[in-house]
Amino acid sequence: MTELQAYPMNGGDGHHSYTKNSNYQKNVMVSAKELITENILEKLDIKSFNPPISTFRIADLGCSVGPNTFLAVQNIMEAVKFKYQKLEIESEIPEFQVFFNDHVANDFNTLFTSMASNREYYAAGVPGSFYNRLFPASSLHVVYSVFSIQWLSKVPKHVVDKSSSAWSKGRVHYSSAPDAVIKVFEAQFRSDMDSFLSARAKEVVQGGLMTLLAPGRPNGTAHSLSPLNLVFDGLGPCIMELVNKGVVEEEKLESFNIPIYHMSAEELAEAVERNGCFSIEQIEAMPNIAVNFNLPKEKICLHVRAIVGVLVKQHFGEEILDQLFELYLNKLEEHAFKFNPQMEKAVNIFAFLKRK
Amino acid sequence: MTELQAYPMNGGDGHHSYTKNSNYQKNVMVSAKELITENILEKLDIKSFNPPISTFRIADLGCSVGPNTFLAVQNIMEAVKFKYQKLEIESEIPEFQVFFNDHVANDFNTLFTSMASNREYYAAGVPGSFYNRLFPASSLHVVYSVFSIQWLSKVPKHVVDKSSSAWSKGRVHYSSAPDAVIKVFEAQFRSDMDSFLSARAKEVVQGGLMTLLAPGRPNGTAHSLSPLNLVFDGLGPCIMELVNKGVVEEEKLESFNIPIYHMSAEELAEAVERNGCFSIEQIEAMPNIAVNFNLPKEKICLHVRAIVGVLVKQHFGEEILDQLFELYLNKLEEHAFKFNPQMEKAVNIFAFLKRK
Repeated sequence: MTELQAYPMNGGDGHHSYTKNSNYQKNVMVSAKELITENILEKLDIKSFNPPISTFRIADLGCSVGPNTFLAVQNIMEAVKFKYQKLEIESEIPEFQVFFNDHVANDFNTLFTSMASNREYYAAGVPGSFYNRLFPASSLHVVYSVFSIQWLSKVPKHVVDKSSSAWSKGRVHYSSAPDAVIKVFEAQFRSDMDSFLSARAKEVVQGGLMTLLAPGRPNGTAHSLSPLNLVFDGLGPCIMELVNKGVVEEEKLESFNIPIYHMSAEELAEAVERNGCFSIEQIEAMPNIAVNFNLPKEKICLHVRAIVGVLVKQHFGEEILDQLFELYLNKLEEHAFKFNPQMEKAVNIFAFLKRK
Repeated sequence: MTELQAYPMNGGDGHHSYTKNSNYQKNVMVSAKELITENILEKLDIKSFNPPISTFRIADLGCSVGPNTFLAVQNIMEAVKFKYQKLEIESEIPEFQVFFNDHVANDFNTLFTSMASNREYYAAGVPGSFYNRLFPASSLHVVYSVFSIQWLSKVPKHVVDKSSSAWSKGRVHYSSAPDAVIKVFEAQFRSDMDSFLSARAKEVVQGGLMTLLAPGRPNGTAHSLSPLNLVFDGLGPCIMELVNKGVVEEEKLESFNIPIYHMSAEELAEAVERNGCFSIEQIEAMPNIAVNFNLPKEKICLHVRAIVGVLVKQHFGEEILDQLFELYLNKLEEHAFKFNPQMEKAVNIFAFLKRK
């Protein structure tokens, strides 16, 4: 297995937990719900499965700690059942087994204790990076992954290597960096998506479906022109302030980078074509209706902290967290992050694939 | 689902953790290892599986937090592979998927982080009581459960009901209690084993194997004549001392009971016969070589604390733990627990079953 870095969301259910700060993800998911249901009803070919299904297996890759994942799998399960009803083969509705996957460092204890006890499926947690194999061959019928594949498997090493021409000095995110840095991130995304698709191609049964959703950017748009990128970039100056205050060593800042990549629909489609095992039923950029900078700034701050808090903690230590996000909140409130009109074009990339 | 009580082992890997105090279980497991390997080689009929196996699925029910569970599944996997080799169909060796099951309150985070990254199987954690269904129908090939089915699903309610003739006043374990109490425990064991076997009968494929090991007593032996029972019974007087010191309320002691039942081979065989879905390949009492009261007393105390510590904490609060087990250790060192020669007859019940 490749050595991979893990970036779990904040566990537990406290003030800074992902559980309490994943409303944005939930909103996007709700807007994708109908798309997924329609696609399952239209594209799921139950009779094509060979052998016939006795257990219908669903996997959520990058499930975090809930509650979004529970709503998502419930939605998929209902769509599948509805398909059986439409075909008037209700009596053949199989049992469901749902696999909740995330990094080993994910808080599975919280995930498990928050599962409804009256769930209508057999549940299992699967620890590990989805850039490796996670499941036996041809064992999954629907794979679902939302807000996960924007995380790269690692920070490309050149980016934090002072001797490299792709060294990203003083920046914590690639989006506003020089071309050489951006190219390294693009290459990392391509390589990661190839690993992801090649693992899934083995795990998903012929005729099985895969639906992906991740924050991205419109085709042909520069990385610097996305409000999502701005949000991450904004952490850089705040950490620099902590360096200036002597709280953080400059070395530490220079070796830190957020391994989130905002893909375009085109880039994702190219990866699927390269892999060759899935047909593209739909790949498109959906308007990112949930990115709304008119939200209370405290909410945006909590949201960003829930996403990158653990990453920051792992690198800089827990003690800087409160200070850093206080500075960050101040900057949000002072409107220190300057938008330009093009930045409104934030999108989520939605993909619906079928295993050939 | 039935309402069930959960008694997880001590999580984490600290001084009082199950991880650090499960050597006894490990020793017993090692002595069972050869038996399991032999049985798999002899009884596993690979060609009988229909459809043929593409993924070989193993479940450890009551896995706790490791490391014993990893050794156990490794052993099973090797035996299965060896069977393929003996049949000269090595090229057909399937992929393995291993399900680690325990109560929702088990420390799955510790379990997952302590898994070897070079394991040769796909791993999944399955939270929930094995007295309910946990897996899809006909989805398991080998079920393994060691040191788990001695835990009843709950304390029978009559035992802590003052108005009942089976009220077990002042005792924390049934073994030295009046007949009425013992009868209620026996009935609870029968009912629990019926639930357990009925769930597994659905989950294990035809030809699939199940191996069980649990501390027990020889056929026809009174419950009071087992050193294991003595060990639990001995907690009663210690808690009573805390009552006398005003640290614990008497009410609390009276509503406390350890839901561990030490079955006989006969009782287990009867349950399998009642269920009717499994053939008994082997059920026997193995000498309990690992129970050795010449062990350092500190070790025995840590062992008991690892098993019932969480149970005590849930009922009485964490603050009494250190005090209680200090008293308990004193009693062990003063030889306050009186053995009689018959007590040497402690056994483990080993069962190897095959799904008809």
